[in-house]
Order: sequence, then C-alpha cells, then structure tokens
Amino acid sequence: MSVAGPSTEVWQGRAVRLVRRPQGRPVVDDFSWDVETVGPLEEGQVLVAVSDVSIDPAMRGWMTAAKSYIPAVELGQVMRAAGAGVVRESRHAGFSPGDLAVGLLGLRELAVVHGDSLIRSAPSLGVPSEVLVGGLGGTGLTAYFGLTDVGAVRSGETVLVSAAAGAVGSVVGQVAKILGCRAVGLAGGPEKCRHVVEDLGFDACIDYKARAEDLVAAVHEACPDRVDVYFDNVGGAPLEAALATLSHGARIVLCGAVSQYNADHQGWHGPRNYMNLLVRRASMRGFVLFDYADRYAEGALQLAGWWAEGRLKFHHTFVEGLDAYVDALNRLWDGDKLGKLVLRIG
Amino acid sequence: MSVAGPSTEVWQGRAVRLVRRPQGRPVVDDFSWDVETVGPLEEGQVLVAVSDVSIDPAMRGWMTAAKSYIPAVELGQVMRAAGAGVVRESRHAGFSPGDLAVGLLGLRELAVVHGDSLIRSAPSLGVPSEVLVGGLGGTGLTAYFGLTDVGAVRSGETVLVSAAAGAVGSVVGQVAKILGCRAVGLAGGPEKCRHVVEDLGFDACIDYKARAEDLVAAVHEACPDRVDVYFDNVGGAPLEAALATLSHGARIVLCGAVSQYNADHQGWHGPRNYMNLLVRRASMRGFVLFDYADRYAEGALQLAGWWAEGRLKFHHTFVEGLDAYVDALNRLWDGDKLGKLVLRIG
Repeated sequence: MSVAGPSTEVWQGRAVRLVRRPQGRPVVDDFSWDVETVGPLEEGQVLVAVSDVSIDPAMRGWMTAAKSYIPAVELGQVMRAAGAGVVRESRHAGFSPGDLAVGLLGLRELAVVHGDSLIRSAPSLGVPSEVLVGGLGGTGLTAYFGLTDVGAVRSGETVLVSAAAGAVGSVVGQVAKILGCRAVGLAGGPEKCRHVVEDLGFDACIDYKARAEDLVAAVHEACPDRVDVYFDNVGGAPLEAALATLSHGARIVLCGAVSQYNADHQGWHGPRNYMNLLVRRASMRGFVLFDYADRYAEGALQLAGWWAEGRLKFHHTFVEGLDAYVDALNRLWDGDKLGKLVLRIG
Repeated sequence: MSVAGPSTEVWQGRAVRLVRRPQGRPVVDDFSWDVETVGPLEEGQVLVAVSDVSIDPAMRGWMTAAKSYIPAVELGQVMRAAGAGVVRESRHAGFSPGDLAVGLLGLRELAVVHGDSLIRSAPSLGVPSEVLVGGLGGTGLTAYFGLTDVGAVRSGETVLVSAAAGAVGSVVGQVAKILGCRAVGLAGGPEKCRHVVEDLGFDACIDYKARAEDLVAAVHEACPDRVDVYFDNVGGAPLEAALATLSHGARIVLCGAVSQYNADHQGWHGPRNYMNLLVRRASMRGFVLFDYADRYAEGALQLAGWWAEGRLKFHHTFVEGLDAYVDALNRLWDGDKLGKLVLRIG
C-alpha cells in the first residue's frame, strides 16, 4: 500500500561493511559489523526486512578495486548482496506490507530501497524466499540465459557443467535435461556426484578430485560424443579437460572461475590448451546476467513453470546470521555446500 | 589439354620427408632429402613443376602426432605443403601445360596430383606464383574470412592484429583499413613497425619487444576506443594485452599461436586474464581455413580485386632451395622475415 503522507520514522538494523580489500581469501578483519539507521522512507521507497541473502562467488570480485562489469564496493560501504525479505513499510504503489521482495538489498537486516529496483512476489504465490534469491532469481536466470542464449544449446547435444552440485551448475544440468540434452556434471567428491545424478537427474557426474590424474580421460568416458556446450563456473583443470574434449563447433560459456578468485592476477591460471578452440572451430564467450535484464521475466516464468511442475529442483545450504558471513563466503571456495548458499538472517 | 591415351612416362625430383617428430624447434635431422619417382600420370592427374612453397606456422602442428584438424604427416612421408608451380603434363581437362597451378603439392620439386585438387591460374592473368601461394592463396583467405566472418568486423571498429608484418597479419590490417576500420598492428622491432605503418598503411603499430614491460599501456594508447576485434597469430603476452583492452562485445579471432608451437603441451602459456571475456561480454573463437572451402572463390575474387586496384599489397621473403627448408621454417619463430615466407625451388 502506498503511503501518501511524509514519513519521519526511522529504523535500526545491523549491517556488514567492507572496510579493507581482501588479499586472497576474505577474513573477518576485512569487514565491520555495526548498526545503521535507515529511513525515513522517501516517496517510492520501501522498507524490507531481509530474510535471505544470496552468497555468490561474484561477491569476491565486487570486493576488488580492479575495474569489472560493475564498480567495486567502496570501502566503508555496506557489502553489495542480492536478497529477499518481507516488505514492512511502503511508499511505492507496487508494494504492500507483507509482500515478499527480492533485489540488491545489501548485507543488512533492514533495507530501504526504491520499489522500482525490486521484484515483488505476492505471498499467495507461495514461493519461498530462498527460492526467490536462488533458483527463480539470479542463480536460475544465470543458468538459463547462459545455457540457452550464450551456449545456444540444442536438443540432443551433450552439456558439461562444472560445479554441478552448486547453485548455478545444478540448474544448468537440469535445464539441459528438460531441453533434451545429455547432462554431465563435474563435482568434488562422491556425495556431490551421487546428488547430481540421483537427486538432480544428470546422466553422469565426474568426481574431479578423484579423477584429478586423468580428468581428460574421465570427461571422454562420460561424454562419448564429446562436449557441445561446456558451462564453466570454475576455471582451472576442468576448463582444460573440457577444452580437450570439445566437439566441432562447440561453445564454452564462461560464467565464473571460482577456483581462481582468491589469486592475484599473476597467479591466475589460463587454459594452456585454448588453441583447441581453433582445432575444434569452437568459441569461448563470457556473459553477465545484468545484460539480460530485459528478458528476466521470460526466464523467470520459464523456470517457475518447470519448478511448479516438479521438473526443476532447487537445493539450499543455509548459514545462520550476519555474523557468519565470512565463513559462509569461504564455503564457496571450499566447496562445503550443496546447491544454493543462503545466509538466513533476521 | 587432356591427354587421352595411357601414359608410361615417369619423372624424378627431390623431396623432403619427415623422418622424426621434432622436439621443440625442428632440426635438420628431423627430415630427409632424397629423390623420388613420380608418375606415370593416371587419368585426371597433372604433373606440376613446383616453383614456390608456402612456409606456414601450421607446418609445425602437422609434424606433431597429436590429433588436430587434419591428420599429422606420417613419418617417412613427404612433408605437407601448399605450393604453386607450372603444369608440365596433364591428363585433366581443366589443365594444360604452361598453366600455373596452386594446391597442396608437398615439399618437392615435381608433384603428381589430381587436377580437381588444384586451382588453375591462366598465364594470361599475370598473377605471380608467390602471390598465388600467398596473398591470393591460403594466406589472404585466412585473413579475409578470419576478419570478416569469424571476427564479424564492422566499419568504424578498431582491429588489432599480432604478427602484423607477417603474411596473414599484413593482409588483416590492410583489409581492415579497406573496410573502414582503425587498424593497429603488433610487430617485433622498429623496422617492422615502420613497414606496417608506412608501407601497409596501418594507423599504428606497437613494437611488442620494446614495449614488453608495459604492453597493456601501449595497446591502450594505440587503441583509445579499445579493441573490437583482436586477430591473434601469436598467443602469449600480446593475447593477454588484447584481453586487457577489449571493448564491450569484442571478438578475438584465434588464427595461430606461433609463440607457443615449439613448446610441449605442458609448456604452453594460457591467457591468465581470459575472464575478461566475461567482464567485456566478449568471445574468443578459433577457425580453420578449410571450413571456408565453399567460399574460396568469393574471398579470392574480393582480394584479387583490391590487389589489382593497388589497395592491397603483398610482401614476400624468399628463401632459395629445398635444402634451406629447416632454416626457412625456423625464421617463422624467430621473426626474421617480412610478409609471406616463400621457399623458391626448381
């Protein structure tokens, strides 16, 4: 409900600020936890009580001063984060108290943002807040546009995806199956591989830790018709193994390089066998979800439909409380999670 | 002129065979020079007295057992090579003695091949044999299709090309200029850079040896609007510098990696900053000229027209005699040449 009159009310909530640029793995001293005052609401703004924060590998890049696709988080600012929560107050016609809302709310308990920057989910839709920030949010959309648009996948092709038990990778493989492809995952450890095949329905999953010595052979075995689309979330050895197994005209979708994010630039590992792109007449293309903003509705509706039909499953790993942010973040590199990593607060 | 009756005549000529797979730089002991007997001509075949052999970086790959886009040259076989020469005898309706012919003739003085695998150039056209194997042959076509089709270049864009004083690179930049682009080269040494700008008409040329310490800054200076198409012939540091300077939506055309060809696979250097493809929503795509076989005529006519109009210049470095093959080949890595490297024999 839009509130016409001026408001003077303010609120207090905890927030996490970036106070130092991490060297390598982020540590607690790179951040501060304090109480901020938000409000009063200006016309068009809403107050959201954040319940779920999306913990993304991209956060590591946002902490680095180097130029990237969006500006780095400035020192002293509340850490950028996608989140979902319940609208408490609204001076925007599109939102009423009790609505679920998702958007870039920041790493905080209470967010005041313009309603135009939020997506509303009516409580009657019954979409859980963790799904709003995950499978039906940026995570799912990244998988969907990366696979279908950047990867230009076609029915009958073989799709290989790294971090297959992770947030984006798990959706990539499931969507590949829905579209009639062979879906093969790469994941670390037998339990994740079991999950990927048995719970998510991939055709196969390679334990890249167990097969580190002969990863190329493992990919060949799992992809006898070679790899038509490789969706890369990790870089490193899996990227090289995929490059060694490309089909003629294959596409590599660069979504992330999580194995590399904590190295400084000189320590990054480039794919030594990138000239397989020539041998196989293949391409490697990067993308950023924000470029698909005008197609979010299309992607979200498609994903929501499959999810409602039970054909697409979203798994979550929850970590509790703002104080656990650094631990949660580092679980991304350690692989100590299944599916979407969500910081649950408030 | 087609010769109807059976032929019994045979001919003898010198040939170069691959007898050992090179480790690192090719050496004389990797090859043998001997006399082979060719003929008699079967129906459809022609006898060509080879005059010009194209010395290509791709030859290094053809010597390696690893699978590539075409089978490796087998040990004991005459080395694969594109060449041009004069038809001496013909049992193919399309060729008469005195015609110039170009094709995969091998590293030999006398070649007997089926006329269907050759391209004919009537003597009256006046195209020199070195131009047939170079600017109007595979070299020029590689530049043309790489830039226009793989690179999808558009007027007004900035095209950066490595090995700009070399066979393919020199054509890439000149075609870029003809198409209305800013053409910037990378070459080794002041004389090559002078040649690229003054003789070939590029807008600028970066001496990558002199600017090794600040190559990224040098590319930024020469490409103030960033790089829309990077045509890569060399790999290594220039590829990383280009990746650091891509425009939004840029295309990297992978044509070669001449800085890497003599390293074993573990010694190859992958581009550490390949994730700039994501930041810039850019692509890196490899291609092989053979895939454009059905468009060779289109490309050759286009190039021949520009050449006849004087808008496209081809420079050559000649090395004399089959005995000089290994020296000639190694000039490719040492950069000790200008334009197209041609082994002149017979």
